[in-house]
Amino acid sequence: MLYFESDYTEGAHPKVLDALIKTNMESLSGYGNDHYCESAKEKIKKACECETAEVHFLVGGTQTNQIIIDSLLQSYQGVVAATTGHIAGHEAGAIEYTGHKVLTIPEIQGKINASTLKQFLEDFYNDGNHSHMVFPGMVYISHPTEYGTLYTKKELEDISTICHEYKLPLFLDGARLGYGLTSSQTDVTLPDIAKLCDVFYIGGTKVGALCGEAVVFTKNNTPAHFITFIKQHGALLAKGRLLGVQFDTLFTDNLYYEISQHAIKMANLLKDIIKEKGYPFYLESSTNQQFIILTNEQYKLLQEKVRFSFWEKYDDHHTVIRLATSWSTTQENLLKLKDIL
Amino acid sequence: MLYFESDYTEGAHPKVLDALIKTNMESLSGYGNDHYCESAKEKIKKACECETAEVHFLVGGTQTNQIIIDSLLQSYQGVVAATTGHIAGHEAGAIEYTGHKVLTIPEIQGKINASTLKQFLEDFYNDGNHSHMVFPGMVYISHPTEYGTLYTKKELEDISTICHEYKLPLFLDGARLGYGLTSSQTDVTLPDIAKLCDVFYIGGTKVGALCGEAVVFTKNNTPAHFITFIKQHGALLAKGRLLGVQFDTLFTDNLYYEISQHAIKMANLLKDIIKEKGYPFYLESSTNQQFIILTNEQYKLLQEKVRFSFWEKYDDHHTVIRLATSWSTTQENLLKLKDIL
Amino acid sequence: MLYFESDYTEGAHPKVLDALIKTNMESLSGYGNDHYCESAKEKIKKACECETAEVHFLVGGTQTNQIIIDSLLQSYQGVVAATTGHIAGHEAGAIEYTGHKVLTIPEIQGKINASTLKQFLEDFYNDGNHSHMVFPGMVYISHPTEYGTLYTKKELEDISTICHEYKLPLFLDGARLGYGLTSSQTDVTLPDIAKLCDVFYIGGTKVGALCGEAVVFTKNNTPAHFITFIKQHGALLAKGRLLGVQFDTLFTDNLYYEISQHAIKMANLLKDIIKEKGYPFYLESSTNQQFIILTNEQYKLLQEKVRFSFWEKYDDHHTVIRLATSWSTTQENLLKLKDIL
Amino acid sequence: MLYFESDYTEGAHPKVLDALIKTNMESLSGYGNDHYCESAKEKIKKACECETAEVHFLVGGTQTNQIIIDSLLQSYQGVVAATTGHIAGHEAGAIEYTGHKVLTIPEIQGKINASTLKQFLEDFYNDGNHSHMVFPGMVYISHPTEYGTLYTKKELEDISTICHEYKLPLFLDGARLGYGLTSSQTDVTLPDIAKLCDVFYIGGTKVGALCGEAVVFTKNNTPAHFITFIKQHGALLAKGRLLGVQFDTLFTDNLYYEISQHAIKMANLLKDIIKEKGYPFYLESSTNQQFIILTNEQYKLLQEKVRFSFWEKYDDHHTVIRLATSWSTTQENLLKLKDIL
Repeated sequence: MLYFESDYTEGAHPKVLDALIKTNMESLSGYGNDHYCESAKEKIKKACECETAEVHFLVGGTQTNQIIIDSLLQSYQGVVAATTGHIAGHEAGAIEYTGHKVLTIPEIQGKINASTLKQFLEDFYNDGNHSHMVFPGMVYISHPTEYGTLYTKKELEDISTICHEYKLPLFLDGARLGYGLTSSQTDVTLPDIAKLCDVFYIGGTKVGALCGEAVVFTKNNTPAHFITFIKQHGALLAKGRLLGVQFDTLFTDNLYYEISQHAIKMANLLKDIIKEKGYPFYLESSTNQQFIILTNEQYKLLQEKVRFSFWEKYDDHHTVIRLATSWSTTQENLLKLKDIL
Repeated sequence: MLYFESDYTEGAHPKVLDALIKTNMESLSGYGNDHYCESAKEKIKKACECETAEVHFLVGGTQTNQIIIDSLLQSYQGVVAATTGHIAGHEAGAIEYTGHKVLTIPEIQGKINASTLKQFLEDFYNDGNHSHMVFPGMVYISHPTEYGTLYTKKELEDISTICHEYKLPLFLDGARLGYGLTSSQTDVTLPDIAKLCDVFYIGGTKVGALCGEAVVFTKNNTPAHFITFIKQHGALLAKGRLLGVQFDTLFTDNLYYEISQHAIKMANLLKDIIKEKGYPFYLESSTNQQFIILTNEQYKLLQEKVRFSFWEKYDDHHTVIRLATSWSTTQENLLKLKDIL
Repeated sequence: MLYFESDYTEGAHPKVLDALIKTNMESLSGYGNDHYCESAKEKIKKACECETAEVHFLVGGTQTNQIIIDSLLQSYQGVVAATTGHIAGHEAGAIEYTGHKVLTIPEIQGKINASTLKQFLEDFYNDGNHSHMVFPGMVYISHPTEYGTLYTKKELEDISTICHEYKLPLFLDGARLGYGLTSSQTDVTLPDIAKLCDVFYIGGTKVGALCGEAVVFTKNNTPAHFITFIKQHGALLAKGRLLGVQFDTLFTDNLYYEISQHAIKMANLLKDIIKEKGYPFYLESSTNQQFIILTNEQYKLLQEKVRFSFWEKYDDHHTVIRLATSWSTTQENLLKLKDIL
Repeated sequence: MLYFESDYTEGAHPKVLDALIKTNMESLSGYGNDHYCESAKEKIKKACECETAEVHFLVGGTQTNQIIIDSLLQSYQGVVAATTGHIAGHEAGAIEYTGHKVLTIPEIQGKINASTLKQFLEDFYNDGNHSHMVFPGMVYISHPTEYGTLYTKKELEDISTICHEYKLPLFLDGARLGYGLTSSQTDVTLPDIAKLCDVFYIGGTKVGALCGEAVVFTKNNTPAHFITFIKQHGALLAKGRLLGVQFDTLFTDNLYYEISQHAIKMANLLKDIIKEKGYPFYLESSTNQQFIILTNEQYKLLQEKVRFSFWEKYDDHHTVIRLATSWSTTQENLLKLKDIL
């Protein structure tokens, strides 16, 4: 069986694992009060080229989205997101659980745009009944999106401008940020993101760590008593070192980029194979997730030899599937996949 | 100034007020433990022709929606509603506040239909990732809808059938139920609703009471310790008599129907006037709310002499407004409105 | 049967009811946007002698406590209250429902004091682990307390000083405020309360209204978009006039004080009767609630002729009961009670 | 610097780490759908000697308490716990965040007892106003407790009997369960706990894992759609293998017991040292946490060379501290500590 199901089917990148092994016997205080967390934070700040950045570590993606959003919104506010946003459909209502509505706006290939956002905000404030409605309180985007697509720098700037015009924090979900930063089709850098967003996170789980996401508040805007807030939400890790050591390693010697570049390289190879074999793409993605359309027969046959993700029904006879690469994807397995396809 | 803004611009119907006056000095226990509440409950059960019905009184509509939905859903469930449903857009996130997502499905003139609902439920259960999604836990409809439209008995039966096939309680928001029951275009009766729905409420606030909604659980299905649940939600009225006396009166000598019939009669007169004057209707409503399209100039002019509700923008040059009648609407005022139009 | 069960066993004071009757046919906008609400707010501000006061009307006591507390606390904060505070034990967890802990501190006859409060706050901030604990975010007191007792002006000043030293808003629950203000044993006035507290409410339900509580934010500190917040919590009354008209009347010609004074006068008469009959008081109360200790035999006998409130077990053979007076208590009924006792 | 601050100052037990290394490159499905999770679950069921047990893995202790409690309680219910219970004071209000009150009852050295519990429950149901109060919905205990003390089998049986008499699930927090099971002073086994409790968890974080707690529902009573519930609470780990591999190792060849026994052995040595040096114990603990009373001078001096936990103030001149042992505590370090003491 070949695994192209997701970018988290293996454990940790060997260098990350090595760091855990090497530091294992060191006695350290809990809850993130250790020198690895400190070091990781400094390295991330530096990578962001952002003096005012403050970094916190959390365990997983849904948890991170939930905590960031709940910590920044007032009770009467909701978060604006694409209808296809991860928080809108695939987190089991984790945002609503915290009492906040996800206010969805139309998207194209997973991306919202500044004018749609502006229209939504204008309509809200022009509505005579808006005091009986959920106030937009922040904007959520992901980069790459659910469909592996990327914002251009110009698009991000425009969204950021609208957000700040309406005094809404802009939050970028970077669960797969590495694959966005190392795509050959992007002009967006980590410092750009730190500049344009008010908060974002750098995904570890899907980019070579066992677990872990690094939250970056970019404008000295960490919510007050954020540690207590995290604890209250059941998300404070006792052995905070587990996150600190991993991110310290990921941000040493460019490892985070290396890991991502490898996955992108493998994804490009995968795209070539798919093109060669004549399977239609559902859309053009320049990151590590590729979406292709299979007939239902092809779907069933492929299932016998390859693990992939069902994405959505295309029509009665076709299905969209996702194939993902990661740090652990090998050329060898891609060639095996080619044979199967 | 003429008031056609809503059906709650005056106080209580004179008979309701009289009952409050007559019973005012009676000493009664609090929290609904009084004989007026008991009597009102019996009368409502009788009007519903439903032996297994259990009745509770609450103060307002949003509160009632919030409490019913939160009491029937499990944590991991959401409520299915039309995209235009009152709970979806105009209750300031009161459902999300309780931790539940409003799962919206397409509507036509405010109504959902059985096949759209069925499709939504099938898609949900067919989705391989549905354990990461909010489970549909009940279905919310309103009758009349936000647009004054009504379900036919057949439509309700079909929706009810799908709900029960999927073991989802069907909840009918009857904030304006009287106007639905007394429309000349309906074949749906109160006993029909009691039979087809698992819970619904009979609106008082918008049908002649100072405040109050009568919740009817129809299948011996009142949530355990519902009084405590209501108290916890801040919705238990100390002087429960205020609701008991009002509903006891509304369900004496057919008053609830009389009040509603008067409003419908006035609405029909209003429709004649609008037709005569040549204003286009936004849609055909057979209840007490009428939606018409004004040019922006007409809108401004009308605003000077009449209070009405802004509904939504039709296009850049036109606006949809709502005019509502009630027990207190007079023929005299309608004629004045005619002159103005 | 005689009713001394509570101060809300009858409807509204006749003058309040009259005002509802007189204004009933007036057409008014909903949700508190009417001139009676405006007028009532102005009168209350004047009675408070507080220029910076902002007034909002809500329906009931638990709802009011819930909304004020939830609106002022941050997620990681709780509300400090006496162990016997109404919010701590008798509101079915309405505060916890909003996500906040009630942090209880010891009390004497329902009252907390400044030094206990200070000790609690010092201990909290001295605790090395306090980032893993709920932060005190505001202080709740009631006046009169659950036991009918009253704070002196000095006591309130001291509590207020500690609160402001620790930057905690002081919230006074005035569900029975009238009886506190008109007790012969008090030196605390409404302007004192407005000065010393950051928010408080003037109870209507238990002081002659059908329902209604007037919330007063005293320092220009109404939470942003408070109407939306109220709506979200299911507590925005459509016919806001119902509250506006009642409070406008209660604050016209001193009615609120008159009502309260009558109850106090009746309570003093009740105390004389109890003393004369030799029943022991559980504690000394100078307001409209009196707590007496009955043997279990006396308890059973009294139950046959009088409705009163069970308060708590005193010991295996004795029970504490509460008798309450109100605007509607008559000397005649007190004399009947005397005969029974 | 010597570390006796807690039992989670080092990484993972070498065997646990080895297992992570060995399995690292294996491709596995996410979210706990892997064969290591399956294997670990089977081993735990076997260790519990409980056919009806169902096992789930979560990341941390507060998260686990939060999720178990929120999943088992109805909205109107709270959880009964000792006033010193971890959930009552040291989890930043994580339980209240989910909407539930922690109902505290008196304890002795961290333990509640059956008669206090019974009294509390009787009082609740005898209270005429209990419909306005939070219903007790489950009982929380920890074993060992916050103070390292242990329940006897008889005590657990008695508590269990009362719980089941009142139809309340009994939940045992086993964050440090290993140290309870391997104490020389206990007669309580893992099968006893599985038999007497309705749900409990086996702590990994504090007993040799990097992170992880194994929740055991013992009576086929896992809440419906528990995975979705976990996801909604932000607690579903993408790489579920991280927990599966660790627990699979901990429950292979008795490792969980071995780890615990070592800590107990070291704790006994520590106790001997403390006794020899004449420091007073705050209480008698037979597990891996030892509480001793220091003068404030001793406290300051010790701080320079040893990391320990501040526990609480004993009086103005004395402080209670905690010293903890774990799998990684060495005799060598204990001897160094002896020299320092």
